[in-house]
This record gives sequence, C-alpha cells and structure tokens, in this order.
Amino acid sequence: MKAILIYSGGLDSTTLLYEYRDSIALAVSFDYGSKHNARELACARENCRRLDIPHLVISLDFIRQYFHSDLLQGGGEIPEGSYADENMRSTVVPFRNGIMLAVAAGLAESHGLDTVLLANHGGDHAIYPDCRPEFIDAFDRAAEAGTYNGVRIVSPYCNITKRDIALRGKALGVDYSLTYSCYKGGEKHCGRCGTCTERKEALEGFDPTEYEA
Amino acid sequence: MKAILIYSGGLDSTTLLYEYRDSIALAVSFDYGSKHNARELACARENCRRLDIPHLVISLDFIRQYFHSDLLQGGGEIPEGSYADENMRSTVVPFRNGIMLAVAAGLAESHGLDTVLLANHGGDHAIYPDCRPEFIDAFDRAAEAGTYNGVRIVSPYCNITKRDIALRGKALGVDYSLTYSCYKGGEKHCGRCGTCTERKEALEGFDPTEYEA
Repeated sequence: MKAILIYSGGLDSTTLLYEYRDSIALAVSFDYGSKHNARELACARENCRRLDIPHLVISLDFIRQYFHSDLLQGGGEIPEGSYADENMRSTVVPFRNGIMLAVAAGLAESHGLDTVLLANHGGDHAIYPDCRPEFIDAFDRAAEAGTYNGVRIVSPYCNITKRDIALRGKALGVDYSLTYSCYKGGEKHCGRCGTCTERKEALEGFDPTEYEA
Repeated sequence: MKAILIYSGGLDSTTLLYEYRDSIALAVSFDYGSKHNARELACARENCRRLDIPHLVISLDFIRQYFHSDLLQGGGEIPEGSYADENMRSTVVPFRNGIMLAVAAGLAESHGLDTVLLANHGGDHAIYPDCRPEFIDAFDRAAEAGTYNGVRIVSPYCNITKRDIALRGKALGVDYSLTYSCYKGGEKHCGRCGTCTERKEALEGFDPTEYEA
C-alpha cells in the first residue's frame, strides 16, 4: 500500500496517521473555510513534521463561498449538546467527504499512489450520510473504475467508535494534545459543543485537553 | 428534475444545456488551469446568458498546482491525430470527472437540487476511465448515498457518439460557433489535435468552426 491520507488534524485522522505511518507517502489537508480549520491545520502540520511525512494543504474556497453550513465561517452558531443529536445536522457540509475523496483520488493517481485513507468512524453515521459504509463502498468502486491505476478507498475505522480509535491511539503513543476537535474554533476547546462532548467521551481517563468549561 | 449542469462550454455540454434547459437551475464551470479553459469559459458564459440560466465558475487551482497532465498550462505539447489514439492519454487529468461530480453534488444538495447532469459520451471511454458507464454508475450510487436529498447523476450521452450529440444539437438549433473544443487553446481551433479531429467528424456537413489548418 502506497497511500495518501485525508488529514484534518483531529483525533481520528491523527490516530490513522500514526497507525499507517509506514504506508503513508503523502498527507493532504483541506482548508474549506470551517470555523476550526486554522487550529486543525496547525496540529496537522506539526504531526506530519514529527513523523517526517510530506503534507499538502489544499484550499477549497468554493465551499466557503457557495455552500451552506453552520460549520463554516459566516454560518450560524455551533450547536451544543450530544454529537449524535439532530441539532448537529446544521454542521453538515454537503458531500464534504465526497469532495475530499475525489481530490485525494486524483492526487493519488497523479503521484503514483494506490490508496486513499479516510478516518470516518461509526459514530458519524447518524448525522453524516457521506460517512456511512454504503457511501464509502460506492465511492471505492467509483475511484477504482475512474482511475488508470485503480485507486482504492480504505477506511479502517468505518465501523468502530471514537472511543475505540482513542484506545488504539493511546496504545500507539499518540499525543492527543496535538489534535483539535472543537467546532467553535477557539484557542481552547469549548467543552460544550457536540464534537467536544464526543472528544471527552473518547479520551476519558487519559484526556490531555484543556477545556474552557 | 431540478438539475445542476457541469458545463465546460464545449460541444457536448452545450448540447446538453440546450436539451435540458427547462430542468437546469444552475450551470457550473470549472477553471482548473487547462490550456483551453479561458476560451471554453467565454462560450459557457455566453450560452448561459442567452438562455438566462445562472452560471457559476469555480476555480480548482490545486489541479494546476499539483496534478500532472499535458492538458494543463505548463504541461507538455498537445498531441495531434485521432482522438481515440493512445497518445491522447497524456491529456488525461486524473479523476477530473470524479472531482467535478463531487463538487457539483455538494452544490446540488446545498442549493436544493436533486440531479447532476454530465455530458460524457461513448467516444470518451477508451481514453478516460472516469467517463465510462461503470464509473458513472458507481458515482451515482455514492452521490445518492452520501447526500441527504439523494442527489443522482444523469449522463444521457454516456452511450452515444459525439456525432449523435451534434445531430441532436442541430435539431435543437444549437449554434456551435459558440462552443470551443481545441485542447491547444488558441484563438482559432487548430484543426489538428485529437479534439479538433473529433469535432470535425461530429459536425461534418454543418460545421461553423473556423480552423487554422
């Protein structure tokens, strides 16, 4: 496997970076105008530097310009409460994983790589249709059919929970203080939004995060 | 059907614009740094203006920056000869249709539209994997599974030839002098590259194009 990792700088994709570090030839982050993009990207850069993995940041400015989502700069307030709640739906960025996977598949073919790694997980399925297995499976077939070198999509966390991911990362020695989750994008994690709530549950017992609340 | 059209300004997608004009709520063109982008876009703008269809141009600058293809500015020479020849392979932009379909599917969901129209055709299959029916079918399933409103991909020309498309357009009264095909991107169509050769064959008997050669 010669892989490109779609790398946000959050808990899940940082764990995947460490778990597949020997197979990852390139990590790619996307700047699409979310409120927390800058803080995620700072973490992504630092982890790639530590592991000596080449890292690209690609701007998808059209998402900020033309898409509607409370996750984006200029969108509404980030909801608080449980991650699985219906209120998180306002943070969906339409087909975001489809767009990131498509760009990464093109980059993979262009750079002679055969695999795109994505860190979607089981807890995302309720709210985000482009995190579900049926989406990933169909996109995998599309990428394989649509590229000369038959690029494949691999998502090892698709059917496990964020807690499972964090436990894997703990065993791998991942420093989670160098990951960022909060959708509000403040200097400290707010501790109240859906992603902060989910992060706290995942890291319970070994959480190095400084929360505001 | 409330559709978004992926619209290059070439012969095929201009025909599709006219054929589905009553269902198209938005046309989107992509500026990805090809040698002929500017001339295509000028045609796309003018045809949308004439039909009073809203038109977006989205920049995909990362393709010019990070992808390898002779079609792109800074790439090698555009090959001459038949469109189906293996030499056209150097003009493949890896997973270009995958990327454009993904962005269009996200835009469709964001704007309350249910369909993405793409003008890929039977003559593209030999050289471009992301024009083949198996790619389109898989991407259609991915878009449906990955969006809240189940966006579908519709490609009515997938199994007909460019000649068939031109004959449909002739019947619809399409003005093909307002379409651009030449991969070299000059003021006049060169008349010798693969796409010019293909264009000549398609428009034979009613070709309004001024060729250099």
